[in-house]
Amino acid sequence: MNRALTILSIIGVPVSVAGVIFQWPAVMMFIIYCLTIIALASVIGRGTDSLAIVMGPRIGGLLNATFGNAVELIISFFSLKAGLINIVLASFTGSILGNLLLVAGLSFFVGGLKYKRQSFAVQQARHNAGLLIFAVIVAFVMPVVFTETMNKQDTMVMSAGISIILILLYMAAMLFKFVTHRGVYQGKDNAEESKKEEETPEWGKVKAMIILATATIAVAYVSDHLVDTFEVVGAKFGLSELFIGVMIVGIIGNAAEHVSAVYMAYKNKMEAVMEIAVGSTLQVAMFVLPVLVLLSLLFSPRMPLTFTMPELVGMVTAVLLINMLSTDGDSNWFDGAVLLGAYIIMGIGFYFV
Amino acid sequence: MNRALTILSIIGVPVSVAGVIFQWPAVMMFIIYCLTIIALASVIGRGTDSLAIVMGPRIGGLLNATFGNAVELIISFFSLKAGLINIVLASFTGSILGNLLLVAGLSFFVGGLKYKRQSFAVQQARHNAGLLIFAVIVAFVMPVVFTETMNKQDTMVMSAGISIILILLYMAAMLFKFVTHRGVYQGKDNAEESKKEEETPEWGKVKAMIILATATIAVAYVSDHLVDTFEVVGAKFGLSELFIGVMIVGIIGNAAEHVSAVYMAYKNKMEAVMEIAVGSTLQVAMFVLPVLVLLSLLFSPRMPLTFTMPELVGMVTAVLLINMLSTDGDSNWFDGAVLLGAYIIMGIGFYFV
Amino acid sequence: MNRALTILSIIGVPVSVAGVIFQWPAVMMFIIYCLTIIALASVIGRGTDSLAIVMGPRIGGLLNATFGNAVELIISFFSLKAGLINIVLASFTGSILGNLLLVAGLSFFVGGLKYKRQSFAVQQARHNAGLLIFAVIVAFVMPVVFTETMNKQDTMVMSAGISIILILLYMAAMLFKFVTHRGVYQGKDNAEESKKEEETPEWGKVKAMIILATATIAVAYVSDHLVDTFEVVGAKFGLSELFIGVMIVGIIGNAAEHVSAVYMAYKNKMEAVMEIAVGSTLQVAMFVLPVLVLLSLLFSPRMPLTFTMPELVGMVTAVLLINMLSTDGDSNWFDGAVLLGAYIIMGIGFYFV
Repeated sequence: MNRALTILSIIGVPVSVAGVIFQWPAVMMFIIYCLTIIALASVIGRGTDSLAIVMGPRIGGLLNATFGNAVELIISFFSLKAGLINIVLASFTGSILGNLLLVAGLSFFVGGLKYKRQSFAVQQARHNAGLLIFAVIVAFVMPVVFTETMNKQDTMVMSAGISIILILLYMAAMLFKFVTHRGVYQGKDNAEESKKEEETPEWGKVKAMIILATATIAVAYVSDHLVDTFEVVGAKFGLSELFIGVMIVGIIGNAAEHVSAVYMAYKNKMEAVMEIAVGSTLQVAMFVLPVLVLLSLLFSPRMPLTFTMPELVGMVTAVLLINMLSTDGDSNWFDGAVLLGAYIIMGIGFYFV
Repeated sequence: MNRALTILSIIGVPVSVAGVIFQWPAVMMFIIYCLTIIALASVIGRGTDSLAIVMGPRIGGLLNATFGNAVELIISFFSLKAGLINIVLASFTGSILGNLLLVAGLSFFVGGLKYKRQSFAVQQARHNAGLLIFAVIVAFVMPVVFTETMNKQDTMVMSAGISIILILLYMAAMLFKFVTHRGVYQGKDNAEESKKEEETPEWGKVKAMIILATATIAVAYVSDHLVDTFEVVGAKFGLSELFIGVMIVGIIGNAAEHVSAVYMAYKNKMEAVMEIAVGSTLQVAMFVLPVLVLLSLLFSPRMPLTFTMPELVGMVTAVLLINMLSTDGDSNWFDGAVLLGAYIIMGIGFYFV
Repeated sequence: MNRALTILSIIGVPVSVAGVIFQWPAVMMFIIYCLTIIALASVIGRGTDSLAIVMGPRIGGLLNATFGNAVELIISFFSLKAGLINIVLASFTGSILGNLLLVAGLSFFVGGLKYKRQSFAVQQARHNAGLLIFAVIVAFVMPVVFTETMNKQDTMVMSAGISIILILLYMAAMLFKFVTHRGVYQGKDNAEESKKEEETPEWGKVKAMIILATATIAVAYVSDHLVDTFEVVGAKFGLSELFIGVMIVGIIGNAAEHVSAVYMAYKNKMEAVMEIAVGSTLQVAMFVLPVLVLLSLLFSPRMPLTFTMPELVGMVTAVLLINMLSTDGDSNWFDGAVLLGAYIIMGIGFYFV
C-alpha cells in the first residue's frame, strides 16, 4: 500500500498543478486535492519515521512529536490565512474525534475479530486518559464557559494563555515519557517494537530529508488551493462548514496513519495502536492546535480557543468513552463497535447541525 | 411475596374494569391502576423466567432481552398514543434513574448491612460502564446539543438514526455476551446461579405462555386507562408531567423487579443485582426507548430523542456516579447510601422543577 | 515555620485592631488581615491537632471533622452577614479548586521531584472519588440545572433539602470510616502515622483549649473587618467578586494546611496528602457549605446552593481530573504538573470573567 500511495503522491501533485492552471471544476479539484494530501501525508509520515530511526531515539522522538502532524498544521495554517477559523477549529475536532473514535474503533474492531482479547499497558492508558481530560475537558471547555460574557480581546488573551500552558505541559509530557520516566509506565511490546523498527529505515538520511522537504512544500501548495474549494463544495452538497471541517478536513491529514493503526491492531501491536489513536490526539490537542492559536496572533482574524457547543460536547463525550474503554488495558471487537457507533452518531449530528 | 402479587393481579384487573365502567374518581383509579400494573409486571416477569428456563439459554436470553421490559414498553406505547411525549421520555428517565440509583442503592445498602464488602465481576462492571457512557452520555446528550438549532424534521431524522445505532449495538452486545465472549468477562456466582435457576421453572411451557399472553393483554388494558388519569392527578396534587413521569410511571413497571434485586443483595448474589440494576438500564436505554422512537414514526406526534436538560443532567450524573462506585467490583452500605442520596436529591429536583 | 506563624498571629491581631481604630488604607489592611488569618488558621489547626491527640481518636476525629475548616466557616459567616453571597460561594469554589488542584498538584509535583513514584491506597482514593462525584457533580450541579426556571422560594427549599442530605451523608461517611469499616479500606502509612502523631501533642489540653478559643475569636474579629475591604480592593485592582472569592478568600483559610501537605509529600506520606487535599474538599463540600446554607435561612439574604456556570464547570472538571489521576493509587511529578496547569488555566479564567 505504501507504494501505491507514493505513486499517487507523485501523480497527484502535477495533476493538482494542472487543475489550478486550467481551472478545472472545484468539486473535482476538491477530490484530487484530498487524495493527493492523503498520499503526501503518508510519504511525510514515512520520511519522518526513516529520519527518526537514523537520528536515534532522542532526536527521533522530537521529530515525531513535531513533524507527526505536519500536514494538519499546514492545512490549518492555510485555512487560517484564508480566514476560515471555524473550519480550522472544526478540523481539529474532526482530527480528535477521528483518532479517538474512528481509528481506535476500527482498530479494536478489526483486531478483535482476530483476537478474543487484546491487551495494552494499563498505566500508559491511564496516563494518557488523564492528559485527555486535561486537554479536552479542562483546556477546551474552560474558554467556552468563561468567555461567554467576555469581549474579544480578553477571550484572545485567555486563549493564548491556555495555549502556552498546553504547550508547556506537552513538552513536560515528552520529558516525562522520554527522560525522567522512560520505560517506567510503558508496556512490553512497545519497547520491543521500537527496537525492531530501528533496524530498517525505509530511506537513508539525505534521501529522507529531501523527500520530507519536497512533500512538505507540495502539501503546502495543495492545501493552499484546497481551502479555496470548501465554499463551493459546501454549497453544492449542502454541507455545513462544521461538517466539512470535522468529517473531511479533520480526516485527510491522518488517513494513512489511520490505516496503519488498523494494520497494527491486526498484528496485535496494541501499544502502537494506542500511540497512534490517543498519542496523536494529545499531540494535536496539546501542541498543534495551541501553536496555531499563538501563530494566529500574527494574523487577522485571530483564532481564539472557542469551539462550538456540539464540537465541545462531542469531544468531551468521546474522551469519557475512550477513557472508560481503554483504562482496563483490554480491548475486543465490541469495544470497537461502541466507538464506531459513537463516531457515526456524531457524524449524523454534524451533518444535520 | 410472589403469591400476594399474583392474587393482587387477579383482583386488580376486574376492579380496574369495574372502575372504568362505573367511572370511579380518577385519583382512586390511578392508585388501583398502579398497584395492578406492579402486580401484573411481577407475573409477566415470572412468566418470562419460566418460559426462558424451558426454552433453553439461547431463546431464553432472547426472551428476557425483549420481554424483560414489556410493561414499560406497553405503558409508553399508550402514553405515546395519547400524545404524552414528555411523560414517555420522563418515564424512561425515571426508569434509568430508578435502576441506577434507587435499585442499586437499596441493594448495596441492604446487602451492606449484612456483609461488610460484597464483590462482583470487575470486567463485567467495566463493560457495562462503557455501554452506559455510550447510551446515556453519547446517544442521549448528542441529540439535545445538536438539535438546538435544528428544525423538527431533521431532529426526528437524527433521532431515528441514533435509535437504529442503539438497537444495532444492543444486538451486538447480546452477541458479544452470549455468543462470541460467553463467560469470558463474567463472574462466578452468575454462572452458578443461572445453572441453579434452570432447574426449577415456576410454570410449565403452555401455562407460562397463557399467563404471559393474558397478563400482557391486561397490562395493555390498564395502561390504556392509566394514562388518562395523569392530567387529573397532576392537577390535584400539583405534580408536573416531569415528576409523574420520572417518579411514578418510571417506577411502577419495574417495582417487582426492584424488590427482587434487594432480595438478591441480601443473599449476596451481587452479579444478579448488577444485572437487574445496570443490565436493565441498558435494555431500556438501548432497546426499549429506541424501538419506541422508531414506532413513533408511524404516529403523530412523533417522539424525538430529546430529553429536557434536568433529565439529561440527572442521567449523566447518575451514570458517572454508578460507574465510579461499581468499577472497583466492590460494594458496601455506604456506596448504597450515596446512590440513595443522589436519588433523593433528584427526586427533590423533579418535584420542584 | 510553625513558630514564625505563631509570632505572626501574635503580631497580626493587635496590628489589625490598630488598623481598624486608626482607619488605615483598605488595601493595606486587606493584606494585613489576610496574613493574620493565614497565621491564625495555622494556630487553630495545631490547636485542634493537639486537642485531638489528648482526647483520643473518636472525639479527636470529630474535632478534626468539625473544627478543621473553622476559619473558612467563620470568614464565610461574616461574608454572609455582609450580604456577600457571591463571594461566599466563590470562596468555596476557591477552597475546592485550591485543595484538588493547587494542593494536590504542588504536593504531587514536589514529592515527585524526590521520588519516582509515590503510592497511596487505591481503595481509599476510589471511595473519595465517588464522594467527590456525589458532592460536586450531583449535589452542586443539580440545583443549578433544576432551578433555572424556579422561583426563589423553591430554589431555597431545594438548596436546604440538598444541604441536609449532604450533611447526613457526611456523617454517614464518618460512621463508615471510623466505625463500621475502620481500617478496611485504609492504607498502611496512614495507620502508622496517626499512631506516631498520637505521641506528641504540641500543647496540653487546657492550653490547647485556651489557644483555640482565643484564636477563634481573633479570626472572627479579623474576618468581620476583612469582608469590608473586598469592595475597595476589587475596585482598585479591577478584580471581580468571583476572582477575589475563588483566588484569595478561598485560599487564605487553608494556606497553612496547604504548606503542610507539600511537606508531607516531600516526606512521602501520600495518605496524609490525600487526606488534606481530597478529605478537606469533602469536608468543605459536604459539611461546611451545607451548614452555611442552612444557617443562611436565619438571615436575609438567604444563600441558595447555586454556583455560577464557570464555578460549576471548574469544579466538575477538577473532580474528573483528580479522580482520573488519583484512582490508580500512584502519583509522580507530571501528575502534579497537570493539576497545576489546570489550576493556572482556571485562575486565568476567573481573572478575566
